[in-house]
Amino acid sequence: VQRYIVTKLGEDWIFLVLLGLTMALVSWIMDYASAKSLQVYKWMHGELSGNVLLQYLAWVTYPMVLIMFASLFCHLVAPQSIGSGIPELKTILRGVVLKEYLTLKAFLAKVVGLTAGLGSGMPVGKEGPFVHIASICAAVLSKIMSIFSGVYENSAHNQDLLNPYGYTDILTVGCAVGVGCCFGTPLGGVLFSIEVTSTYFAVRNYWRGYFAATFSAFIFRVLSVWNKDAVTITALFRTNFRMEFPFDLQELPAFAIIGISCGFLGAFFVYLNRQVVMVMRRQTALTRFLTKHRLIYPGAVTLIIATFTFPPGFGQFMAGELMPREAINSLFDNFTWTKIWGTTPPPGLGRSSAWLHPRVSVFVILLLFFVMKFWMSAISTTMPIPSGAFMPVFILGAAFGRLVGEIMATLFPNGILFDGIVYRILPGGYAVIGAAALTGAVTHTVSTAVICFELTGQISHILPMMVAVILANMVAQGLQPSLYDSIIQVKK
Amino acid sequence: VQRYIVTKLGEDWIFLVLLGLTMALVSWIMDYASAKSLQVYKWMHGELSGNVLLQYLAWVTYPMVLIMFASLFCHLVAPQSIGSGIPELKTILRGVVLKEYLTLKAFLAKVVGLTAGLGSGMPVGKEGPFVHIASICAAVLSKIMSIFSGVYENSAHNQDLLNPYGYTDILTVGCAVGVGCCFGTPLGGVLFSIEVTSTYFAVRNYWRGYFAATFSAFIFRVLSVWNKDAVTITALFRTNFRMEFPFDLQELPAFAIIGISCGFLGAFFVYLNRQVVMVMRRQTALTRFLTKHRLIYPGAVTLIIATFTFPPGFGQFMAGELMPREAINSLFDNFTWTKIWGTTPPPGLGRSSAWLHPRVSVFVILLLFFVMKFWMSAISTTMPIPSGAFMPVFILGAAFGRLVGEIMATLFPNGILFDGIVYRILPGGYAVIGAAALTGAVTHTVSTAVICFELTGQISHILPMMVAVILANMVAQGLQPSLYDSIIQVKK
Repeated sequence: VQRYIVTKLGEDWIFLVLLGLTMALVSWIMDYASAKSLQVYKWMHGELSGNVLLQYLAWVTYPMVLIMFASLFCHLVAPQSIGSGIPELKTILRGVVLKEYLTLKAFLAKVVGLTAGLGSGMPVGKEGPFVHIASICAAVLSKIMSIFSGVYENSAHNQDLLNPYGYTDILTVGCAVGVGCCFGTPLGGVLFSIEVTSTYFAVRNYWRGYFAATFSAFIFRVLSVWNKDAVTITALFRTNFRMEFPFDLQELPAFAIIGISCGFLGAFFVYLNRQVVMVMRRQTALTRFLTKHRLIYPGAVTLIIATFTFPPGFGQFMAGELMPREAINSLFDNFTWTKIWGTTPPPGLGRSSAWLHPRVSVFVILLLFFVMKFWMSAISTTMPIPSGAFMPVFILGAAFGRLVGEIMATLFPNGILFDGIVYRILPGGYAVIGAAALTGAVTHTVSTAVICFELTGQISHILPMMVAVILANMVAQGLQPSLYDSIIQVKK
Repeated sequence: VQRYIVTKLGEDWIFLVLLGLTMALVSWIMDYASAKSLQVYKWMHGELSGNVLLQYLAWVTYPMVLIMFASLFCHLVAPQSIGSGIPELKTILRGVVLKEYLTLKAFLAKVVGLTAGLGSGMPVGKEGPFVHIASICAAVLSKIMSIFSGVYENSAHNQDLLNPYGYTDILTVGCAVGVGCCFGTPLGGVLFSIEVTSTYFAVRNYWRGYFAATFSAFIFRVLSVWNKDAVTITALFRTNFRMEFPFDLQELPAFAIIGISCGFLGAFFVYLNRQVVMVMRRQTALTRFLTKHRLIYPGAVTLIIATFTFPPGFGQFMAGELMPREAINSLFDNFTWTKIWGTTPPPGLGRSSAWLHPRVSVFVILLLFFVMKFWMSAISTTMPIPSGAFMPVFILGAAFGRLVGEIMATLFPNGILFDGIVYRILPGGYAVIGAAALTGAVTHTVSTAVICFELTGQISHILPMMVAVILANMVAQGLQPSLYDSIIQVKK
């Protein structure tokens, strides 16, 4: 019997390692492909800068083609791959059988559709679909391994309590790996997957998830070192805040305000998202028409969003030229924009210059960005393509936090004096806290704080961030269900 | 019904806040008192520096008095307060009733005994006992609140499934708060308490623990700002490693070696600790004598340990003058000792100078420190006083990691060249990884990595640390039970 268990445990390690390896490769390839696509998009935009009309056509057509391709591909190959994936997984983990949901077809559709979506520059998230992809990978891998060994043989087909690892165990680990290697955040990945998918969970899965997610995140980061994207293994959105006295106690009320506001904003986001879905579900002439011609809805949404973000047009007032990841990096930067606005740009400003309009105040730009991206994100996550809401909401939160931070920096231009030490305001720190708080509010989780630490590679703001995330959760949980529960309710 | 639930939830918040507040105060007062005690100890040692005999007497007597007082006090007030507390809590959470274990008497004995133990400078940990203290606090608080409201009325007496929060829920939160406000590490606290105490656990408790532990850690850190110990809210053992390129991929084998070695060392520590307990349990003339005269055993152990660490004597070869927290701070520092050894000490070296003996190499000092502290820690945790093993093991791990780091720094004196960038070796980073790996191996948990991030305030070494912790766990779990399970087995 002992040898039997040892063999099984040994095979479990192999399973976890294989899962981690596969997902790291998939994640990296997707990132690479979508980054290249965005590069082409921006290169086209730059090349055509002489002719505004052509430029506009290129700016609008490129994402439309990609989004419509993604929509068509998913519709033809596997309609199950549409949407985030987390709500469906939550349903499966509660014991409901969703057909055709964990097949190779869905895997293919999701990977291709998501890569196209990410490469279009639309506010589309990677995290949710990636959880789905990882779960499919885990389910398929367990089936393949059962051919060779028999460990997962029964477990993949019927839930046998005597089995060492059941279906739930496999999918839980899949979730953890999905979140973990999506952005290289293994710890946050494990915690997020626990919070989102379970109500009771086994500590051994925490373990297995931790192992697989770490391995996966490690390979994911090593791949980018190997590809010379990064010089060494570091965080994805590394911040560079000062370590000494990152914030003062007197800034806490501002952090609390961010938390509470994010709670309300998060609840409103969930409400808005549901309203859009409900309107689309109602039987009207318009929706019947849209159901018949499936590509019109995503095409129209993309057209509207791309029109608004067109940099020489309205986009200049909302930093429209920034792609999602650039937006995060610039929102987390170490400058105080209100201070450098109107002066000669300091060295190392990089993409952050998009926020500094020669005539319009930084506050207006940030506010416009936030308001516009808010409805854009709420709508674009309803498009029939694989798309998550985590990243768009993360950007929204970062913009909101940055706005509060810049206001604070204007109110206290010389910093806060306490005990003989002057604490300069770090608007970038506010942005990180805002991002954690808003994602926490929308998903009803607190582990977004952990994800934030891992994403930024800095833990200096730990206490204010946790306070903000808890406050945001308290408000949001009182007002609305989580985005995932909301989608489950609507789909029923 | 709804109003009923709302009232209950409201009362739950109050309970969590009160628990957090109380434990933060207790933790801070204990830290304050034991720090003062250590100050007196060192002051005495300094004042008597003319007369070696008197100095020795003072060095030995002071901890002996404190330890014997702690032992006597615990024996008279509540013998249940002896030891770590985590094994007992684990037993209780599995449904076994341990009598008189969660009483105010045990609380008092544990707090006083632990403060005296920490104030003696012996290798005695705060974390385990503090988990016990917090659990008592939670149990007592829930009883008090039941007088006013009735929420916890039945739950504290009999496990009623209809109750919103049962005994287990209360104690789980107590554990999280205990670990969380012990060193101001809320996240690690929640995770550690989950891993150590549960096999299945409810996600709502994760939530409640997160809330209470954050609140508690926050108050704990605010108290030290208020007392001017710290300038602002920062980590307890804040490190200052460079953010850019903290390590290179080629250093990974060294990190892996630390992990695997720590796995073996951790298993050996558990084995050694159990052997000491077993020898003391055997019925011989000596143990009968020791049981009769209870104070002789702790007194003798303290005498031996203090004699070895006496700074002008053997202590000079093992940095004996460093108190536990000073040892951690100096092991985590940013210098490379092998480089500054023999030169004029650089500014800001501080207590780290204890490691630089004028004639003996740094390696010898580190090795002696590790070997001597290893058996000292294994023995001193068997003394009949409230004492945990987490902190002593943490120090051991840090010393081991530092040793490896210093060896690496000697092997690659100019750093590692990769891709045109020279990566200098950071021995302090190795120390942090060693500390996480060894505590992980001894306790069979992976959340020690999280505790390490929170303790040091830096997350730059996240991936190598997680790899090392996982490797250490894989080795240690194959060889020995965790320290807590080992104690449970022995006590049976």
